[in-house]
Amino acid sequence: MSVLDKINSSADVKKLNEKELTELCAEIRTFLTENVSKTGGHLASNLGAVELSVALHRVYDTSADRIVFDVGHQSYVHKILTGRKERFGTLRQLGGISGFPKPYESDDDAFIAGHASNSVAVALGMARARTMKGEKYKVACVIGDGSMTGGMATEAIANAAAANEPLVIILNDNNMSINRNVGGMARIFDRMRLKPAYFNFKRAYRQVFRNLPELYRFNHIIKENVKEHLVSDNIFSEMGMYYLGPVDGHNIGKLESVLEYAVELDSTVLVHVITKKGKGVPYAENNPDKYHGVGKFDPLTGEMPCPSESFSSKAGEVLSSLADDNKDIVAITAAMTEGTGMDVFALKHPGRIFDVGIAEQTAVAMAAGMAKQGVTPFVAIYSTFLQRAYDMLIHDVALQGLHVVFGVDRAGLVGADGETHQGTFDVAYLSSVPGMKIYSPANFAELEYTVRKAVYEDNGPVAVRYPRGGEGEWKELQTDEVAVIKEGTDVTLVSYGIMINNCLEAARLLEKKGVSAEVVKINVIKPLDYSVLDRSLSKTGKLMTVEDVCTEGSAGEKIAEHIAVSDIKLSYLKLLDLGDGIVEHGSVAELQKKYGIDALSICTKFMEDNCLK
Amino acid sequence: MSVLDKINSSADVKKLNEKELTELCAEIRTFLTENVSKTGGHLASNLGAVELSVALHRVYDTSADRIVFDVGHQSYVHKILTGRKERFGTLRQLGGISGFPKPYESDDDAFIAGHASNSVAVALGMARARTMKGEKYKVACVIGDGSMTGGMATEAIANAAAANEPLVIILNDNNMSINRNVGGMARIFDRMRLKPAYFNFKRAYRQVFRNLPELYRFNHIIKENVKEHLVSDNIFSEMGMYYLGPVDGHNIGKLESVLEYAVELDSTVLVHVITKKGKGVPYAENNPDKYHGVGKFDPLTGEMPCPSESFSSKAGEVLSSLADDNKDIVAITAAMTEGTGMDVFALKHPGRIFDVGIAEQTAVAMAAGMAKQGVTPFVAIYSTFLQRAYDMLIHDVALQGLHVVFGVDRAGLVGADGETHQGTFDVAYLSSVPGMKIYSPANFAELEYTVRKAVYEDNGPVAVRYPRGGEGEWKELQTDEVAVIKEGTDVTLVSYGIMINNCLEAARLLEKKGVSAEVVKINVIKPLDYSVLDRSLSKTGKLMTVEDVCTEGSAGEKIAEHIAVSDIKLSYLKLLDLGDGIVEHGSVAELQKKYGIDALSICTKFMEDNCLK
Repeated sequence: MSVLDKINSSADVKKLNEKELTELCAEIRTFLTENVSKTGGHLASNLGAVELSVALHRVYDTSADRIVFDVGHQSYVHKILTGRKERFGTLRQLGGISGFPKPYESDDDAFIAGHASNSVAVALGMARARTMKGEKYKVACVIGDGSMTGGMATEAIANAAAANEPLVIILNDNNMSINRNVGGMARIFDRMRLKPAYFNFKRAYRQVFRNLPELYRFNHIIKENVKEHLVSDNIFSEMGMYYLGPVDGHNIGKLESVLEYAVELDSTVLVHVITKKGKGVPYAENNPDKYHGVGKFDPLTGEMPCPSESFSSKAGEVLSSLADDNKDIVAITAAMTEGTGMDVFALKHPGRIFDVGIAEQTAVAMAAGMAKQGVTPFVAIYSTFLQRAYDMLIHDVALQGLHVVFGVDRAGLVGADGETHQGTFDVAYLSSVPGMKIYSPANFAELEYTVRKAVYEDNGPVAVRYPRGGEGEWKELQTDEVAVIKEGTDVTLVSYGIMINNCLEAARLLEKKGVSAEVVKINVIKPLDYSVLDRSLSKTGKLMTVEDVCTEGSAGEKIAEHIAVSDIKLSYLKLLDLGDGIVEHGSVAELQKKYGIDALSICTKFMEDNCLK
Repeated sequence: MSVLDKINSSADVKKLNEKELTELCAEIRTFLTENVSKTGGHLASNLGAVELSVALHRVYDTSADRIVFDVGHQSYVHKILTGRKERFGTLRQLGGISGFPKPYESDDDAFIAGHASNSVAVALGMARARTMKGEKYKVACVIGDGSMTGGMATEAIANAAAANEPLVIILNDNNMSINRNVGGMARIFDRMRLKPAYFNFKRAYRQVFRNLPELYRFNHIIKENVKEHLVSDNIFSEMGMYYLGPVDGHNIGKLESVLEYAVELDSTVLVHVITKKGKGVPYAENNPDKYHGVGKFDPLTGEMPCPSESFSSKAGEVLSSLADDNKDIVAITAAMTEGTGMDVFALKHPGRIFDVGIAEQTAVAMAAGMAKQGVTPFVAIYSTFLQRAYDMLIHDVALQGLHVVFGVDRAGLVGADGETHQGTFDVAYLSSVPGMKIYSPANFAELEYTVRKAVYEDNGPVAVRYPRGGEGEWKELQTDEVAVIKEGTDVTLVSYGIMINNCLEAARLLEKKGVSAEVVKINVIKPLDYSVLDRSLSKTGKLMTVEDVCTEGSAGEKIAEHIAVSDIKLSYLKLLDLGDGIVEHGSVAELQKKYGIDALSICTKFMEDNCLK
C-alpha cells in the first residue's frame, strides 16, 4: 500500500512521519504525471506545488480552515490529498472533477479560482467574516508571482496590511507566471529573494522564547520592532504586514515551520516561498512554459503531438504578416503570448509586442493611449479575461471612439477549463460598449479577412471574436456582413462563428426529414444589418437562432427585438443558446449536446416544436 | 489688466516672471472659488493643484506634449490656463465646458479622465507610441495618491518601470483621496515623505555637471548608480524607475526645477509632489472633504445650503437601521463613504464599514469572501464605477451564487459630471450576470422596502439600483414586482425608477389630448415577470418603454424580445432610451429633454407616431 493510498484529508497528512512525507511527495509526482498525461490539464505548476500543498495540510485543516488558491490550477495536489484521487482520472471531463477549486465539488475547496489575483481580497473578506462572527478557523491564500502582477492583488494587499486580521498570504514565487514574469513587480521579487534576513532571525528569536509561551504570544511590541528594523525594505513590510522568507518551497520541514510561525503571529503575514515550476520531472522543469497547460502527452518522455492550427495561431500569423507592411501595428497581451498565438508575432516583431502581465485593465488603457497617438494596437485577450477590462472598453476606448482592435480569443465554449473560463458573456458585454463593431469569423480565411478589415478599414473600437481550437466544415471565405450560405424555404437557421457548422449539419438532418432549411451566417454581430435576414424570413416565416453564449445580450435577443419592432410576422421563433452562461467543464461537443445547440438537438427541437416527425 | 487675462496657452505661462507667477496663482484661486461657487464642481483638489498646474505649463507645452490627469477633476487650472477661462462660467452645463479633460473640447486635453487610476497605463501607451513613431513630444501624467489605491495604477507602474520610456509620473500627494487615504499604500507614501535624500543630492550633483552638458546628458551609468544607492528603499525605485522628491507642491520654483530635471533624465521618473487640498482658501483647507465636489456655495464663507435627502442618504439610513438588528450586515465602499450615504452607517457601526480605497474589484471580491463565510455585505458603489468590477460580479459572486447585495448608486443620468459618470450601462451589464436580481425602486419608501427584501428574503447576487438625487412625484410604496400604477386603455407606458415620474406626467399630457395611457411600473427588472404587462398590452395593444439607460441590454429590449417570442400582437411598439449610452454633461432635466425621454417628448412622440394631434 502506498502512502498516498492512506491519505484522504488534512488529518491523514498530519499523521505521517518525515520519511512517509518524502515518499508521499514522490508518489504524488508520479500520480500527477501519469494522470495528467491522459486527461490533459495543468502540470508544471502542480509539480512545483507538491511540497507546499503537503505542508499546508500539515498546518491547516481544509475541512474547516479556508485556503484560497490563486490561480486554482495549482490545486491538483490539494484535491488529491482531500479524497479526490480515485476520481482524478475524470479530471476536466463532463461530470468529472474540475481542474480548479470548486466549493460545489468539495467543502475542502474554499473558493472558486479561475481568474487570477482575486485571492487576497477573497481571503481578507473571509478573515473579516470569521473575526466578526467570533469563529476560530484559520484563513490563508496561495498566490503565484504571476497573479501578483494583477493590480487587484496589490489593492487587496494594501487593504490586508491595514486590516491587521489574522491572515497568511503565501506567495508561491516560481519566478515565472505563465510567461516569464514581467515588469517592476518581478524586480521587487528578485531583490527579496536575496535578503533572507528575517526568517533566520526569527528562528533564533523563537528559540529564546520557546519556554516562555505567554511572553512569546504577547510580545507584540517586540515583534513590531523586529519587523521595523529588519525588513523595512520590501513592499509588504513597508505596507505594514509581517514578511517571512524567502523559504525553500521544496523543503517540507522548513515550510511547516514557517507556516506555523506565520499562524502564531496572529496577524497579517506574507510568507515568501520559492518553488520551481515542473519540479522533479526533468522535461517539465526544463520547459515549464510548454508543460503549463497540456493535452495528452507521453509521461516518460514528455513528448506531445504537434499542435494543430488554431484560430489563435492563425490570428498571430495574420497580424504578424500585416505588421510586416505597417510599422504602426503593435500587439498587446496580458501574460498570454503563446495562448493567444502572439508568439509568432513576437518572433518576427520583438519590439512591437507588449506583455503587460496579468493586467487586462492596463492592456486596454495602454492600447487606448497608443491609439490616441496614432498607433494601431491589436489587444489579444481571452473572452473571459477581457471581462476584467469592461470599464476600460467603455471609459478609455469607446468614449473617445479610439481605434483599438481586440482579438477576443476563446469566445464561446472553451470546454475542459469549465465555468470560470467559458467565453459566454462577450457578445453581451461587447455589445453594450458604445460604437463597438463586433466580427465573428467562422473560419481561418474569414479571420484573416476580418482582422485585415478591422485594422485598415474600420475606425473606433473593433472586436474580432474567435473560438478556442480550429475551424470546422465551413472553410469558404464569405465577406458579406450577413449572408445566406445555404438556401431553403421552410425555416431560417441563423448563427455566427464556428456554430455555423452545427447549423449546416442541422440543415442536412432536416433535409432528410423533408424540411428545407436556409442557413444565414452573420459575420458582423454589431451593428447588425437585418436586410438579408428579413428577406430570408419573408420566405420561410420561421426562425431559429443558434449561439454558444448566454441569453442576455445575445444576438438572438437583438434579432427578436428587431422582429418585434418591425412588420415581420413569424409563425415560429426560437432562440437556442446557453441560458445564464454558467457552463461546467466537459468537451465542447458534449457541452453543445447537453445545452441543445449541436446539430441533432437543433433538428430535433425544430421537429418537436413544429409537431413534425 | 490681471496676469490671468494675458494667459491663453502654455507659451503665455512661460513668459511670466517670478512676481507675475505669484500673482497668477492668487488670481487663479479667486477665479476658481468665485466660479465654482456659482456653477458647482470640484473645488478643493483644484485649489491644491494651482502651483503644480502652473509649473507644468512652464515645463510642458500642452498643445504638443501630453499630460494625462488622474482623476480629471484636478484639471480646472489647466483648463483656465489654456484658453477656456472665458467659458468657465459654463462649467458642467449643457453645451458648456466639461468638468473633466476632454480632447473633443481642446487639443490641450490629452485624454479623457473620469475614472481613476488609468493615467499611467494611458501615458505609457502614449510614450511608447511617441517613441515608435520617432516623434519628440514629452509625456507625463498627474496622479493623485487616492488614484494610487487602484490596482490598475500599480499594474501600469510596474510596466512603466520596466519599459524605460521617457515618461514622467507626477504623484500629486495630498495625503487624502476623496476620503482619507486607506491602507498600505498610504503607509508607503507616509514614509516616503520623510526621506527627501535623493532630491537634495540631485541639486548638488547637477551643480557639478552644469558646465559639462554632454557629460551630464550621457552619464547614464552614474545616474543608475545614484538611483541604486540612494533610493533603493521605496516601491518606485525598487521597481526600477527614478524617484524624485518629495517636493513642496506649492513652490513653483522648486516644482519647475524638479520637473525639468525629470524630463532631462530621459527615462521613467516618478516625481513625488506634496500638496495641500483646498490650499489658500481657509474653509476648504480646513474641510477638504466637504469642498471636494460641491454645489453652489458662498465664496466668502464657504457656506452651503443644507443637503436635501437623497436616495444615497436614504440607503445609508436604511442599511444602518437594518444593521441595528442584525450584526451580520456590513457595508463596503470604494473611497465613497459620503457619496454613497454610508457615512450614516459608519457613524453608527464603525466596526462594520470597510472602505477599500478606489478599488472596486477588491470591494466586490472581498464581499464575495465575506458572503461565503456567512456575512451579508452591502456593496455601495456608483453605477459607472461598478463597471470596474464586472468580472468579479460574474467570477467571484455569481458563479457560486453568493448572497451579496449591491447598492448601485447614481444609476441612470447623473447630470453635470457628464459622459464619464453617467450610469447608463448598469441595466445591460448587471442583466448579463447569471442569477443577478435587479431592483429599481422609484422612491424612498420603495428603496427601504427593496433593500430590506434584498438583505432578508433574496439569495444570490442582488442589485438595488437607484439614481442620484431625490424622489419625484411618485412617493407611494408599491411592493409588487410589476404593477399598473395608473390605468388606461390606449397605450401602455412602461418604466422603472424615477423615470416613472416622467411616464405619469406624460400620461396626464396624453389625457389632455384624448389619449388614455396606462402606466406600468417595474420594480424588479430581472427576472422580469411579464404577466401584468401582458394583461395591459392585451387591453391597449400599444407600448412605449421609457428608460434612462443605453439601448443595448435595456429592459425595453428584453420586453420586445418577449413580445416577439409570445403571441402578443401590438399595433405600436417604441423603445425610448439613451441610444449608445454616451451622454454629455448638463442638468438631468435638460438631458432628458435632449434625448427625448422627458414627459413632453414621450407625449409628442406617441402623438406623432400615431398620427394624432
